[in-house]
Amino acid sequence: LSTAPSLSPALLIARKRDRGRLSAAEITTLIQSFMAGQLADYQMTAFLMAALLNGLDDTETTALTQAMLHSGEVLRLPSVKRYKVDKHSTGGIGDKVSICLAPILACCGVAVPMISGRGLGHTGGTLDKLEAIPGYDTKLSSSRFERVVREVGASIIGQTAEIAPADRRIYALRDVTGTVESIPLIVASILSKKLAEGIDGLVLDVKAGRGAFMKTLPDARRLATALIRIGKAAGKDVSALITDMDTPLGKTIGNALEVKEAIAIVKGEGPSDTLEVTLALGAEALRLSGVAKTAGDARRLQQRAIDSGRAAECLERMIAAHRGDPRVVANSQRLPQAKVQLEVRAPRAGRVLDIEPMQLGLIAIDLGAGRKVAEQAVDHAVGIELCCELGQAVGKGDVIATIHAQSKAIARAAAERCEAAFRIGSGAAPKRKLILRRLT
Amino acid sequence: LSTAPSLSPALLIARKRDRGRLSAAEITTLIQSFMAGQLADYQMTAFLMAALLNGLDDTETTALTQAMLHSGEVLRLPSVKRYKVDKHSTGGIGDKVSICLAPILACCGVAVPMISGRGLGHTGGTLDKLEAIPGYDTKLSSSRFERVVREVGASIIGQTAEIAPADRRIYALRDVTGTVESIPLIVASILSKKLAEGIDGLVLDVKAGRGAFMKTLPDARRLATALIRIGKAAGKDVSALITDMDTPLGKTIGNALEVKEAIAIVKGEGPSDTLEVTLALGAEALRLSGVAKTAGDARRLQQRAIDSGRAAECLERMIAAHRGDPRVVANSQRLPQAKVQLEVRAPRAGRVLDIEPMQLGLIAIDLGAGRKVAEQAVDHAVGIELCCELGQAVGKGDVIATIHAQSKAIARAAAERCEAAFRIGSGAAPKRKLILRRLT
Repeated sequence: LSTAPSLSPALLIARKRDRGRLSAAEITTLIQSFMAGQLADYQMTAFLMAALLNGLDDTETTALTQAMLHSGEVLRLPSVKRYKVDKHSTGGIGDKVSICLAPILACCGVAVPMISGRGLGHTGGTLDKLEAIPGYDTKLSSSRFERVVREVGASIIGQTAEIAPADRRIYALRDVTGTVESIPLIVASILSKKLAEGIDGLVLDVKAGRGAFMKTLPDARRLATALIRIGKAAGKDVSALITDMDTPLGKTIGNALEVKEAIAIVKGEGPSDTLEVTLALGAEALRLSGVAKTAGDARRLQQRAIDSGRAAECLERMIAAHRGDPRVVANSQRLPQAKVQLEVRAPRAGRVLDIEPMQLGLIAIDLGAGRKVAEQAVDHAVGIELCCELGQAVGKGDVIATIHAQSKAIARAAAERCEAAFRIGSGAAPKRKLILRRLT
Repeated sequence: LSTAPSLSPALLIARKRDRGRLSAAEITTLIQSFMAGQLADYQMTAFLMAALLNGLDDTETTALTQAMLHSGEVLRLPSVKRYKVDKHSTGGIGDKVSICLAPILACCGVAVPMISGRGLGHTGGTLDKLEAIPGYDTKLSSSRFERVVREVGASIIGQTAEIAPADRRIYALRDVTGTVESIPLIVASILSKKLAEGIDGLVLDVKAGRGAFMKTLPDARRLATALIRIGKAAGKDVSALITDMDTPLGKTIGNALEVKEAIAIVKGEGPSDTLEVTLALGAEALRLSGVAKTAGDARRLQQRAIDSGRAAECLERMIAAHRGDPRVVANSQRLPQAKVQLEVRAPRAGRVLDIEPMQLGLIAIDLGAGRKVAEQAVDHAVGIELCCELGQAVGKGDVIATIHAQSKAIARAAAERCEAAFRIGSGAAPKRKLILRRLT
């Protein structure tokens, strides 16, 4: 990028306010000035609001992504010779796919250098889930991260202070200024972190539905296509699946409970919906890498990794490399357990017509599984286990869910709210389609 | 106003972002939280940008004006029994009307409590002009201000720290975030300060043209009608003139030079365009107050104040009450004089077809008459004197302007640029209409 002309920040903001375009050099100047303290927070937020309302085109979004990426450390992982691929989900309720997918892919000939986030809002975070495993350390040095990726094939760590610091500062401002809901800003935020991982390819899981950030398929499609365009403009292989988040994914919500389900998946024992989404995303990764030519080939490779026990073994090695207790894979009882388990029973006989995800996500947060404010500690043991699925016939009094809580009073309150998330009635439940779109 | 519900700032910002309306209570909360330090600068600027792009309706603008007004001291001037009226101009080149109008009106039976601003950008500020008068103190206490208004009939002071502090903080943010150009925000900023003066009536001089903030008549009309609506909603008598600013007003640009012209006006000796705008605005004030029934009556009253010498005498008393040297009224030579006077001559014979105001305003700033940054001191002596007027026939080498500067080199550079502001050619100059619209 050429040196930007010396333009005052107010003029650049005013141009975006007036629906003008900023050059790549001007966007770079904006971010560099911000990080250098020459552009104030209150100028950044005015720009962000103008960008949200008047949009950023692909050139601007690419420049913003690159400027945020280069505000910090960009990993190269030169010693990892395999194709490096990551999966990123836009977030949903019960989404534990990263934890099972990483070791499965590592058994199929690709490397997975994954930098994950924590939960905030109604969705959980992979880091919080992994920390439910006793001892698991999400803060590896860059060199150790590279070694684990090279030797185990997969490593999941947290975003360090060195990765895209501009994104972290800007995201904190967006969170409190109503400027989160902008596709270009979301794209730049996601990709600036993912491009810092040193990956060759990226698979996006864009969730759509009531439990997702994008409530509708058209919105999810807009986000997915923008992520693909800007990701490809950065020289990466990218593909995306839009997957259903109108119902929680799998049978568990809450950190240790979700790890338990992810362990079950790598052992070939998990719920079919989590497995299907995991293998579909894995197939994308394997096709991007060239390891598999077709979705069928990719499926077979992954299934063999599971059936042979190699995926479970790889998960054990990944946990061990992160100083966690690998014995949780063989024995999930080693994961933290909540003091109280309280069953939620069907108030009437009928068919399960709906399981509303957002309500369940919020109950899980109130149980302590997630955060209401950024500084809050999470309780790894608590959460919700679903004991029925969409379309299933239940009798009155059948157990439809189990609340895992730290006190009977909390469990009872949660159980009452939990019941309202289930709609049980007559008639046929709508057939659930898990993979809504594939975009490349 | 009822107590606002406890809504997070981000939600209020997001509502405006999504083109929603905020209640009066919510706007009040926003400003009060801002002043209490609970709403950060970076949240305010995101709100301001959303308000600029998505608009504020009259209810919101009124609430914003009132909230900003009540962030500080609101004067009542209970001892001033006359009708209290002020004139506010949106700013232009050579606009010294406040200085001559205040004493003229004071001689016609109304009181003029005027709180003025400093110059920033291409337009001058009444305070800077008044401070060209040796000793003139623009910082009176509220009680002294009230006494001068009561005893002299007019006082012009600067905005104190106690008047509308929310406006001062918000304006400083708008200035550096591209959020100045919003009619509702401009209206709230102007009126929050004017309503603090304890006035009964307000006359607005909305300038239109190349030397004004509003370049076109439709834009000026939008601002004028918004000011009238919101001013009336605050219980004030309000009327507005849209006046020409496509050419500088009068014959002088620069602080002492403009004071000299204003003194000439109160003595019946000033240029006809400045006189016409002064008397037209004065007529509005006198009609609002009920002192005059018609524009003709108002004109006669003002002309008598000038012709009788009472207006000049009142200006002397106002200056004296502000600890300034009243002898400048009798003898303008007592005003600061620049070291160098350099004549600008017509490069060809012909008719003066255009005098471009913005260029002249910028030259005056470069001479030192105005500020490039808020902290800068102004040089009261320097400026430009125009020695011709629109439509006048000039011979080659005739003096068309005089530069007042502090060095020959600076004067020469200014003179060269100054020449380009004049277009001299053949054909008829467009007839200048000074009062473009009257709005009540």
